[in-house]
Amino acid sequence: MKNATFYHAGCPVCVSAEESITTVIDRDRYDVEIVHLGEARERIAEAESKGVVSVPALVVDGQTLHINFGASMENVKG
Amino acid sequence: MKNATFYHAGCPVCVSAEESITTVIDRDRYDVEIVHLGEARERIAEAESKGVVSVPALVVDGQTLHINFGASMENVKG
Repeated sequence: MKNATFYHAGCPVCVSAEESITTVIDRDRYDVEIVHLGEARERIAEAESKGVVSVPALVVDGQTLHINFGASMENVKG
Repeated sequence: MKNATFYHAGCPVCVSAEESITTVIDRDRYDVEIVHLGEARERIAEAESKGVVSVPALVVDGQTLHINFGASMENVKG
C-alpha cells in the first residue's frame, strides 16, 4: 500500500473535494489519510514542507496536487 | 463503469497532474478519458459548460476539480 494525504481546513470547497477524491482514488492501492489543518495545527509545517500552499490539497506519489481553492495556507495559519 | 474526463492543454503542469491522476484513480470503477483541448478545440465549449476555468481539470461524479494551475481557459482559447 502507498500513502496519500489529503490536507484540508473544513471549508465547503474542502469537503466537496474530499468527497470526490476519496471516492475516485483506488483504495486497494492507497491508504488515504485525511488531515484537518484547522484542528491538527501541529501538522501545518509538515504540509508546507510538502509544498502545500492552499487547501484542499492531495499529496501522493511525491506530487502535491492543489484541488480547487478553499483557503491559502496563510489563512489556515491565521 | 463511471466516466471521468481529464482536460489539459499539454503544459508541464498538465502532464504532471495527468500522471498523478491516472495513477491514483480506481480504473476498475472509472473510465478516464484524456482530452487535450489544444488539439480537440471543438471540445472547449463542452469543458466550459462543465465549469472548467483552467487546466488541468478533472470532471468526475458531477464535480469539476481544478488540479494545480497550468493555464486559464482564456489562454487555451488563445
